[in-house]
Amino acid sequence: MTVAADGADFLQLSPAAAPVRGLTGWLADAIRAAIIDGRLQAGAPLPATRLLAGDLGVSRGVIVEAYQRLADEGLVSARPGAGTRVLGISRRPAPAERPDLALLPQRWRARAEIDLSPGVPDLSGFPRVAWLRAEKLVLEQASVADLGYGDPRGSQWLRTELAAWLARTRGLRADPDDIIVVTGVAQALALLAQVLRARAVGEIAVEDPGSRGSRDELAYWGLRPVPVPVDEHGLQVDDLARSGLRTVLLTPAHQFPTGVVLAPRRRRDLMDWAAGADALIIEDDYDAEYRYDRAPVPALQASAPGLVAYAGSTSKTLAPGMRLGWLIPPSRLHSDLIEAKHASDLGSPALPQLVLARLIASGELEQHIRLVRKRQRSRRDALLGALHEHLPAARVQGIAAGLHLLITFPGRTGPDTDLAEAILRTGVLVHPLSWHRHRPGVPGIVLGYAAHTPDQLREAVRRIARIL
Amino acid sequence: MTVAADGADFLQLSPAAAPVRGLTGWLADAIRAAIIDGRLQAGAPLPATRLLAGDLGVSRGVIVEAYQRLADEGLVSARPGAGTRVLGISRRPAPAERPDLALLPQRWRARAEIDLSPGVPDLSGFPRVAWLRAEKLVLEQASVADLGYGDPRGSQWLRTELAAWLARTRGLRADPDDIIVVTGVAQALALLAQVLRARAVGEIAVEDPGSRGSRDELAYWGLRPVPVPVDEHGLQVDDLARSGLRTVLLTPAHQFPTGVVLAPRRRRDLMDWAAGADALIIEDDYDAEYRYDRAPVPALQASAPGLVAYAGSTSKTLAPGMRLGWLIPPSRLHSDLIEAKHASDLGSPALPQLVLARLIASGELEQHIRLVRKRQRSRRDALLGALHEHLPAARVQGIAAGLHLLITFPGRTGPDTDLAEAILRTGVLVHPLSWHRHRPGVPGIVLGYAAHTPDQLREAVRRIARIL
Repeated sequence: MTVAADGADFLQLSPAAAPVRGLTGWLADAIRAAIIDGRLQAGAPLPATRLLAGDLGVSRGVIVEAYQRLADEGLVSARPGAGTRVLGISRRPAPAERPDLALLPQRWRARAEIDLSPGVPDLSGFPRVAWLRAEKLVLEQASVADLGYGDPRGSQWLRTELAAWLARTRGLRADPDDIIVVTGVAQALALLAQVLRARAVGEIAVEDPGSRGSRDELAYWGLRPVPVPVDEHGLQVDDLARSGLRTVLLTPAHQFPTGVVLAPRRRRDLMDWAAGADALIIEDDYDAEYRYDRAPVPALQASAPGLVAYAGSTSKTLAPGMRLGWLIPPSRLHSDLIEAKHASDLGSPALPQLVLARLIASGELEQHIRLVRKRQRSRRDALLGALHEHLPAARVQGIAAGLHLLITFPGRTGPDTDLAEAILRTGVLVHPLSWHRHRPGVPGIVLGYAAHTPDQLREAVRRIARIL
Repeated sequence: MTVAADGADFLQLSPAAAPVRGLTGWLADAIRAAIIDGRLQAGAPLPATRLLAGDLGVSRGVIVEAYQRLADEGLVSARPGAGTRVLGISRRPAPAERPDLALLPQRWRARAEIDLSPGVPDLSGFPRVAWLRAEKLVLEQASVADLGYGDPRGSQWLRTELAAWLARTRGLRADPDDIIVVTGVAQALALLAQVLRARAVGEIAVEDPGSRGSRDELAYWGLRPVPVPVDEHGLQVDDLARSGLRTVLLTPAHQFPTGVVLAPRRRRDLMDWAAGADALIIEDDYDAEYRYDRAPVPALQASAPGLVAYAGSTSKTLAPGMRLGWLIPPSRLHSDLIEAKHASDLGSPALPQLVLARLIASGELEQHIRLVRKRQRSRRDALLGALHEHLPAARVQGIAAGLHLLITFPGRTGPDTDLAEAILRTGVLVHPLSWHRHRPGVPGIVLGYAAHTPDQLREAVRRIARIL
């Protein structure tokens, strides 16, 4: 269809619909849309500027400028005197159907009344006041250089604070210059996987059961995860040694999801293996801040910085939405990892780094963790009490630590996915243990307790008990 | 050397050096360090707990707990009754020399009195008050879900604001669901390169001259950059078509570094080529907010969303340190890119996204840009005036836009790197044009003017003139 160059009806433009400001843009947008969707086809003349101006009750300059914009875009011709005509445009490919997000199976992403997914801290306790106060000081004091393109390793101040903080709380041995600020353990793993792939590493040992998210991420980056069994002493290092692999990812301070600690003997064996095989240990220290019965065992990195790439974050102490973490690799990987970080995003956002540095320096982070630890311990106790009362047959695994616990049902048969689905129908979302397993094993469910009050936890357990 | 188990001299531990709190950690750290660096070797007995406690004037429980920690770490034996002895540790590989950062040639990273690197806005103008006010509201109103593991595409609110903002200012046609929030154009390019590599794309056309940073980044991710010449009408699309390539990265609104606009005819040819070759256009809209003479030409994406992956950021409007940007890909790449974003970092940090959404919604971002545009225009004018006065032979390239301009020296021979080095010796840092070139060409220098006052700019030009 060719539209007549009659200002009155042109594209059904209504003077009443014209905005008070931005008339030129409004008109150019309307004509552009008509050209692209075919209402105005190649060769169609646009109304004379004087005519259209009169019709729309706007100045002629508006129309001239709108036509000029379209000419700049190559959509209309602009030969002086010859009038303005629509130029042909190629047929553009039709947009495909918008695909579904399928990063997690739909069933585990459903909204539940009580969401006991592991790994989420009590976000209602996020230290909003302290954060804002620190941000205010940071904004007052930040230099121009602080806001520019920065060091890909992250803020020097934050790295200095982190080095001291991690030495104090986790025994880490790292200079500020050894640390790479990342956007969380997920980015730490992505960077490590990229650098290892480039060095022809194709496989990595992971804990079984172990974090499904980490496993999937490593596979995405081309490192095939090879399961190594976990028992009540943690990763079975003998199996690891027999595998012939030279890279391992593990959670020694509080194994996910079983909650066990890597036993002293296993630690020694692991380090001996790594030293002998010239191997790399990736230590995911995801929730070591939360040990309720005693001080947590120091990081592996503390006794073997040359063998360990250590990763941690604020996801469990502040909030996952912060996307703020750190990676302390052995020096032989350091420069490749910085290059990977630079090629990925140039470096992490500046302001949150400076705020975190301030919160560490002022002691407010430590104070916050102490508070949260107390609250989480009482939640854990409430959950344990309810399990004892309503689910006496369930076996609770792991040490008094972290944000979740695992219960298994040794006598039970049938897949725990069915169990989790039945529980979900009562409004309670839990992860089935098999979701985090490579190989089949005893059924179980993982219960994240940190984000819920004792009452909510007791209610959740009552509902789970009804299913069982 | 084996240290005698005599509490008095043990590791030269001084009761005076012991901290008031955290005694256990202090003692465990000291012993661990001695084991690792060889002062305490395998088989060495630790002092009896009672002895050491007396010597240090602390309770015996402190010593017992410290030894227990070391036993948990597998560093000492803990056989009841037999005393505590150091266990052997493997020889760990010696840490390698710490490598230099070599991401940019050292000479261009030197601190200069007047740094005219392109691409850095006036960071002294960062809207600190507006940002803090917005952050305060965000912290007051953010829900628990806002702080959790979020949608890898980014905050729904920010995507909604961005869709409207980009439609209004750049003509973009995108639903909020089409947008992926990224940490800047650098991350947008990284994700695109990863997804294209996975689809067996191995080469990408880039502008010559063009951004050195982008070129290096693409090469890092395995896309070989193939130069296509730029002239005063922008990218030479005929050359692109002849190359047989099916992917191109360009800066159509304000070419970097030449400052030209892609001419209307070239835009049409580019879209026709892309539609015919089923190609992908990556549009880097890095500084389109700053056009000083008239409204900027709309984005290519506005007329062909199915052919264009559009990328932009707040690096030039707010600050590079924000690391906050957006990617609007054709729908056929959408789901792969989300997967890549998720595998890279799970998603961008939450708080800055919400703050930006608020700054757009309140009109404060627009107000800020209008202010900065005015200031930058006067800086550009000052620079042009000084060039006219002191360097009349230099040819100024490009339109009245952006944060930098390019001057070339058509008659001059000799590499512009020598020129830039001579200029650096006067305390002024400029990029030589050849730094952004693939193939040799007329010498030139790129002058970023946004971060400097008119007086500083005039002083810089006087110094440059002395060299020439």
